Amino acid sequence: MTRYPAAIQNLISQFAKLPGVGTKTAERFVFNLLSQPSDALVAFGSAIGHLKDTIKRCGQCHNFAETDPCHLCGDRSRNRQVICVVAKPQDVLAIEKTSTYQGSYHVLGGLVDPLEGISPKQLTVAALVERLKTNGISEVILALNPDMAGETTMLYLTKLLKQRPNLTVTRLARGLPTGSDLEYTDEVTLSNALSGRREV
Amino acid sequence: MTRYPAAIQNLISQFAKLPGVGTKTAERFVFNLLSQPSDALVAFGSAIGHLKDTIKRCGQCHNFAETDPCHLCGDRSRNRQVICVVAKPQDVLAIEKTSTYQGSYHVLGGLVDPLEGISPKQLTVAALVERLKTNGISEVILALNPDMAGETTMLYLTKLLKQRPNLTVTRLARGLPTGSDLEYTDEVTLSNALSGRREV
Repeated sequence: MTRYPAAIQNLISQFAKLPGVGTKTAERFVFNLLSQPSDALVAFGSAIGHLKDTIKRCGQCHNFAETDPCHLCGDRSRNRQVICVVAKPQDVLAIEKTSTYQGSYHVLGGLVDPLEGISPKQLTVAALVERLKTNGISEVILALNPDMAGETTMLYLTKLLKQRPNLTVTRLARGLPTGSDLEYTDEVTLSNALSGRREV
Repeated sequence: MTRYPAAIQNLISQFAKLPGVGTKTAERFVFNLLSQPSDALVAFGSAIGHLKDTIKRCGQCHNFAETDPCHLCGDRSRNRQVICVVAKPQDVLAIEKTSTYQGSYHVLGGLVDPLEGISPKQLTVAALVERLKTNGISEVILALNPDMAGETTMLYLTKLLKQRPNLTVTRLARGLPTGSDLEYTDEVTLSNALSGRREV
């Protein structure tokens, strides 16, 4: 035996396709599943197989949702004049958890990254521009990661959106994260914190 | 929205039950799956749901197999007088890959670990003793990890099996791994390599 039985080998290769999972980790997953009762496996398998049955993309914000429009876009109490642009659905959840934002969202589905071959055409940029045409949007918040791909995308979107009259384009503040130590803060963060200082 | 849609949330919690997978990793898995075509998800889900349909435990070696006895125990060309005792199915594969062992196996299903509450009763120790009664076994090789749990298990099994007449109990050699550097080898490994030295 230089291979596992076919059913085990097949499932190992399926798990190994997941991001960050190699063959050894996939083997651990499969042997862990083999120690579980059959009905737990059936429930797990069914959750994967039927994942997309109830999940669709919201036509407005392009987030994953069970309804179209999603319950955030359909919520009339939210401010529709502000759109917060994020890269991925997880970011919407992160911002919602702060309970400080009451506007709407737009999920790009990624970031512009020439090295990875991701251009604005593969993102929902055109749909964002379309949304700006129809509604009375006053502000677009670029809530993207302050890293290479995020900065590239913000640069691109700023150029694109600044052309529109009566539209403010903002980005998230850069500065010291809560609980950090000046002594161990990197130079770029500290210089951003200095240049973005506010009167108390 | 402070939670994902139900189908996403459910699958995240399913993935988070796997060993070494936290909520964040589970989220990455699920959003990766959402970007895949539906038929790939159905195939993945079906592989999990039907995992145990074709997989059983071999009645002799207790390894996972598609047949009982498994194709190793059923192979008449292999030496049935030697049993190699391993902790888990992955170890059988590791030894088979060396192509130097032609005997049979016995999968314990774990290691004796009082701290984790694992006693010999939860392992296939009784079945091993039973195998020794019926067949003309001449040697039992304890191929267990040279760590705390492995050493405990070897100590226990050695005491148990040494009582039997005409049975040799051996363990894997301890010494320098291939490609290692004497200078950076820990004291225990080096002293094991010294005491186990062989004439060339």
